[in-house]
Amino acid sequence: MKHKKMLMVVCDGASDRPVKEFDGRTPLQVARKPAMDAIARNGVSGTMDVIAPGVVPGSDTAHLALFGYDPYQVYTGRGPIEAVGAGIDLHEGDVAFRCNFATSDDGVHIRDRRAGRIRSGAAELAEALSGMKLEDVEVIFKEGSEHRAVLVLRGDGLDHRVSDVDPHSEGELLRSRALAPNADKTANLLNEFVARSYEILSKHKINMDREKNGLAPANIVLPRGAGSPAPIDSIASRFKLRCAGIAGVTMVKGICRLVGMNVVDVDGATGGLDTDYLAKARAAVDALEEHDLVFVNIKAPDIAGHDGDFRLKVQVIENIDMMLGSLLKDLHEEVVVALTADHSTPVSIRDHSADPVPVSVSGADSRVDSVREHDEISAASGALGRIRGVDLLPIMLGTANRSSKFGA
Amino acid sequence: MKHKKMLMVVCDGASDRPVKEFDGRTPLQVARKPAMDAIARNGVSGTMDVIAPGVVPGSDTAHLALFGYDPYQVYTGRGPIEAVGAGIDLHEGDVAFRCNFATSDDGVHIRDRRAGRIRSGAAELAEALSGMKLEDVEVIFKEGSEHRAVLVLRGDGLDHRVSDVDPHSEGELLRSRALAPNADKTANLLNEFVARSYEILSKHKINMDREKNGLAPANIVLPRGAGSPAPIDSIASRFKLRCAGIAGVTMVKGICRLVGMNVVDVDGATGGLDTDYLAKARAAVDALEEHDLVFVNIKAPDIAGHDGDFRLKVQVIENIDMMLGSLLKDLHEEVVVALTADHSTPVSIRDHSADPVPVSVSGADSRVDSVREHDEISAASGALGRIRGVDLLPIMLGTANRSSKFGA
Repeated sequence: MKHKKMLMVVCDGASDRPVKEFDGRTPLQVARKPAMDAIARNGVSGTMDVIAPGVVPGSDTAHLALFGYDPYQVYTGRGPIEAVGAGIDLHEGDVAFRCNFATSDDGVHIRDRRAGRIRSGAAELAEALSGMKLEDVEVIFKEGSEHRAVLVLRGDGLDHRVSDVDPHSEGELLRSRALAPNADKTANLLNEFVARSYEILSKHKINMDREKNGLAPANIVLPRGAGSPAPIDSIASRFKLRCAGIAGVTMVKGICRLVGMNVVDVDGATGGLDTDYLAKARAAVDALEEHDLVFVNIKAPDIAGHDGDFRLKVQVIENIDMMLGSLLKDLHEEVVVALTADHSTPVSIRDHSADPVPVSVSGADSRVDSVREHDEISAASGALGRIRGVDLLPIMLGTANRSSKFGA
Repeated sequence: MKHKKMLMVVCDGASDRPVKEFDGRTPLQVARKPAMDAIARNGVSGTMDVIAPGVVPGSDTAHLALFGYDPYQVYTGRGPIEAVGAGIDLHEGDVAFRCNFATSDDGVHIRDRRAGRIRSGAAELAEALSGMKLEDVEVIFKEGSEHRAVLVLRGDGLDHRVSDVDPHSEGELLRSRALAPNADKTANLLNEFVARSYEILSKHKINMDREKNGLAPANIVLPRGAGSPAPIDSIASRFKLRCAGIAGVTMVKGICRLVGMNVVDVDGATGGLDTDYLAKARAAVDALEEHDLVFVNIKAPDIAGHDGDFRLKVQVIENIDMMLGSLLKDLHEEVVVALTADHSTPVSIRDHSADPVPVSVSGADSRVDSVREHDEISAASGALGRIRGVDLLPIMLGTANRSSKFGA
């Protein structure tokens, strides 16, 4: 019984709803996608509730489920994922936040939630905040892409159950409140941090220069999405797998790191519409040499969904299909391939929805059903039936002869 | 992203098994039902274990599941549901029972478990029992329809884990026993209540008159189905929905009230074979004006199933279909419609069975599969796959763009 290698391809948000103007079809049904359909034709397909029926998955919780973790057990908020994605080594008891650099004239009213999408100087601004002490608590602060950053509070007696400071739209910032009996200290320190960020950043040379040049100063920090790192057993130790993750988006990379994957950085993998598909395909083929499981996320369909652009979504699905065709052709051995999405992002909704996603699993001597196309409706009639996201990796492991026996 | 309204139509017990004498078809397969088939044709269908595979649902547990509650968490017995249905406001720690008025000549042997299906005077008899004190425990007693009534014991140290007094057939009544270490007090008080009911009711004027007129006196009370109210979050607070329930049967109304629905009383909605279908349809259309979710239960197919009458079951399904056709035609806006049953009541069994039920969900831009008929076999090949009862409402919420995101 030979162990097979595994490839999980996640077309981010590719799953959709039927659109009247396109004969009641979905982008996956309209797109010409011979490689995706070959995966469906050579294997088994199904429909998948990534979290649970009727639950709208976030990208973060969805990927945790796809990697075999119950997000209700391990997910406390987006903060820790962003922090790990930014390269911060989290400790037990830390509380982590996603943040925006923003613009305020008085430390209370927010004029621009993204500080003019600041592109340079954020690293120096972050450095001016990091290392600060609030009572006995240490502040770790690191810039992300554009206006994004992460904040970690490290010290005794912290609790992640606090509300956001970020008002999520322009207007007055919110005061963080404790959402649990023991979270007062954290909420108070968080509010203090925001006030201090305004004091420090308002006077920072970079912001003086920005104002001189007519740019919005990045003079206040708006934290949101508090969370504490869950004690996660790495995917390597749970399943005895060497895993590699390929993704353009920082958040997805963060989850890959969180579960102990080796994150492969690919030149040109931007997480945008202009991502270099063939570079990603080559990276996946190469990564399969040294790893048992390679995970690839392509963000573009989700972007097209959020834009409400049906034709663009069809186009990016066809681009991914070309990538997949090239990838599958270059594989050196039999590999179990799973093709799916992390959630639906219907163009009619322009946001994630609870609709289940299609999933196809093929490879070597896997079973083969009568499904001939990888789309929301065709796949649902397949032999995989209706499964949950958390079941996908175990099903791949089974097909790859890597599952362990329970009992004797 | 517009929130859509929702309509859940439950054809009570409509699901069945194939019957040889009718070409191995089920009543749903034989009935002419264009409206039901249209729901299947315009949406997605599946097969549903209302509780879990192989579990025979009661009407009570089934409806709890259909309303999104895990019956294993919230159901302790039928008593509380009947009590709420009868309009009693239950407190934590109460123990509630379903009861029959019965006829006994000595307070021990039961001559008629239904006291000649007493039709009048039950309210006065109930009043004679209600308000009684048993040690420090208060007795609340209220009549139901015909020989039915509910008993609530209210006081400290009660426990619902006690056995029935009702022998469930004519013969000697049973002495209630404690089924848990702390339930002795409750069992003893229950036995005392039954003895007191015989003392009081035997001498009651209404029963004297009944005997004079050759009617069986309603001179003893037989409690069964002990339960305590579970702390249930209302459907309104769990899902942020204004809900209305339309049903003829008291028990179903009780569950609607228990979960916080507005119960709409419809003149002519009897819960019997003679129910006024069009009045129910009009009430549903009206209720959708002021509510986000309207639930309609039609009991008639279950009655035909219990009667073992295939042709009658076909007939009532066709009647419901007419109602549905009228209802759907009168809707003022796009509504997500779910059509299903709370359990199977096969005419060959004359009772509930564990067979899963067909389910179809359509509305607006919902996905559409290739299922063209709403019946047990056609639906099972649809894109909904095999779901559980507790998943139906979340799936409707997702289709109606009302689900909330987990994660970011």
